[in-house]
Amino acid sequence: MGSMKLVVTLIGAGLLLSGCQGSPDSRTVSPLHPDPLPSWNAGPAKRAITDFVERVTKEGGPDFVPPADRIATFDNDGTLWVEQPVYTEAIFTRDRVEELAAQHPDWKKQQPYAAVLNHDMKALATTGQKGMAQLLMVTHTGMTVEDFDNTVSAWIVHAQHPRFKRPFTQCIYQPMVEVLAYLRQNGFKTYIVSGGEQEFMRPWTEKAYGIPKEQVIGTQIKTELKNGAILRLPQLDSIDDGPGKPVNIARFIGKRPIVAFGNSDGDQQMLEYTTGGPGARLAVLVHHTDAQREYSYDRESKIGTLNKALDEAQEKHWTVIDMKSDWKEIFPPAGVQ
Amino acid sequence: MGSMKLVVTLIGAGLLLSGCQGSPDSRTVSPLHPDPLPSWNAGPAKRAITDFVERVTKEGGPDFVPPADRIATFDNDGTLWVEQPVYTEAIFTRDRVEELAAQHPDWKKQQPYAAVLNHDMKALATTGQKGMAQLLMVTHTGMTVEDFDNTVSAWIVHAQHPRFKRPFTQCIYQPMVEVLAYLRQNGFKTYIVSGGEQEFMRPWTEKAYGIPKEQVIGTQIKTELKNGAILRLPQLDSIDDGPGKPVNIARFIGKRPIVAFGNSDGDQQMLEYTTGGPGARLAVLVHHTDAQREYSYDRESKIGTLNKALDEAQEKHWTVIDMKSDWKEIFPPAGVQ
Repeated sequence: MGSMKLVVTLIGAGLLLSGCQGSPDSRTVSPLHPDPLPSWNAGPAKRAITDFVERVTKEGGPDFVPPADRIATFDNDGTLWVEQPVYTEAIFTRDRVEELAAQHPDWKKQQPYAAVLNHDMKALATTGQKGMAQLLMVTHTGMTVEDFDNTVSAWIVHAQHPRFKRPFTQCIYQPMVEVLAYLRQNGFKTYIVSGGEQEFMRPWTEKAYGIPKEQVIGTQIKTELKNGAILRLPQLDSIDDGPGKPVNIARFIGKRPIVAFGNSDGDQQMLEYTTGGPGARLAVLVHHTDAQREYSYDRESKIGTLNKALDEAQEKHWTVIDMKSDWKEIFPPAGVQ
Repeated sequence: MGSMKLVVTLIGAGLLLSGCQGSPDSRTVSPLHPDPLPSWNAGPAKRAITDFVERVTKEGGPDFVPPADRIATFDNDGTLWVEQPVYTEAIFTRDRVEELAAQHPDWKKQQPYAAVLNHDMKALATTGQKGMAQLLMVTHTGMTVEDFDNTVSAWIVHAQHPRFKRPFTQCIYQPMVEVLAYLRQNGFKTYIVSGGEQEFMRPWTEKAYGIPKEQVIGTQIKTELKNGAILRLPQLDSIDDGPGKPVNIARFIGKRPIVAFGNSDGDQQMLEYTTGGPGARLAVLVHHTDAQREYSYDRESKIGTLNKALDEAQEKHWTVIDMKSDWKEIFPPAGVQ
């Protein structure tokens, strides 16, 4: 799994940070200003990020942005963590159906549940969007927000990615974790703005990314106050994808971001909205180009389709991360959460 | 306007803060720990607030709450600023109707507009909730969020309270401004959770209260992404009052507050929700008891009705601020914004 390489890199990074690297002449980074993005190779993507941050934080400079307006928004699936071969939330949904099936013997013969229980993807596909919505509602609603938080929290610590055989919260992108921390160190407020269901993310984003619950925006379902608690109702409210992302950014944050990272056509409007304001703006796409270490997909992929947004990125000179060449490491070292 | 008294008090506070007060024996407050709530008289309300903050911030103490969970929510109308004789937003709505009337000559004969233009409260009342909703929509929607922000920002600097003859942002309660700052100094995140329309508040809350836009939750109208901007549509979305307050707190913040301040029955569920969690909790009602310096009203008032929540406060020993005896000053010194 490349863990030896990770260890070697970490030791190297540790030496660099502690100022113990070879002769002074070999230094590329001052020990007083260690590289904030050690998992990034030098290149246009890394330079675009650090140049932007230096410009907007330079007091008195032409591009200075006051801290209150330093808002950065990040898609989650495929931008901050792996979304292949299927969204993590789909695996959670499957696991929940299997767990709940014990209380629902009729599900063995009833679609869309039978398709999930029999791992019959073809039958599942024929149930269409209605089937998917039914699965989402039965696994995600009918309990309080606090109970759902507990359910997700219990699941996320033991569930594993089918290929990488590690918890999903260790299938986050180490270079992006560094970008989040780097931005926060420079006075930015970092937000997640994801198509994933909001309360599926909130239980673990603080620990994984350092992003607190109140800075996590996602697809929302309706809720009501009942017996002093917030009950989750089986009805979609706001779909936080495509044009829904700017709508929710305006509603939750009330400020136009100056930085946005995405990886798919579902992020296109968020990047357009971010770059649509005056002053310096940074729009970045994560391009999945590394089949060996992660996955390689874009225009033709059903999950994380990157087609129109890739064209627009080329036209408008948005920054496109080439995962294969720009990232030294993909995931955090094993065992680190 | 009592401005001399304000000046005297300010000079006194300034002397106290700079450590220049008389003999050491007369000190009631250490110069190293100046009173964080100088506009409050000593009494049970002030003590309840400072005792609570000391308990939850004492590391290793039985009531310690980590900073990430120090969430405090505040109603706005009647809790942070004056809501009598009518809500400030109603005055904005009236002024907007008068301004827009130039482009709508038909309004002179058409309700509910004619009632507003003729200052005919009786006729306005007969148009009922439908008339009110119509006025809200025509004055608050049909433009982008940024245009509405500019409209409110331009209005709020020159509009004046009919009785106090000062800008509405100087009709905020100085003792509450001190509570907000005191909580933030102690690691709290302070939020507004108000029945007022969200985007009517966001343009001025940072300057008036130190609360940034992203920590302002209010009644929301529907919006859509159009030509790269967020367009405000003439349709209510979420009513942030009564049970809607806990629902929106869960949606926006995702954490149960440990502190909540309100002043009316519309805040009752927010205070119940806040006190419904485990550990130390602080629920406070502002009771308007000072007809001379502000207003005196509670159970029978049409605006800011405080009836059921007052009963519950007495039963559950919530803190009730007696404005007349607890507050040395009501408003900030004239000229300060």
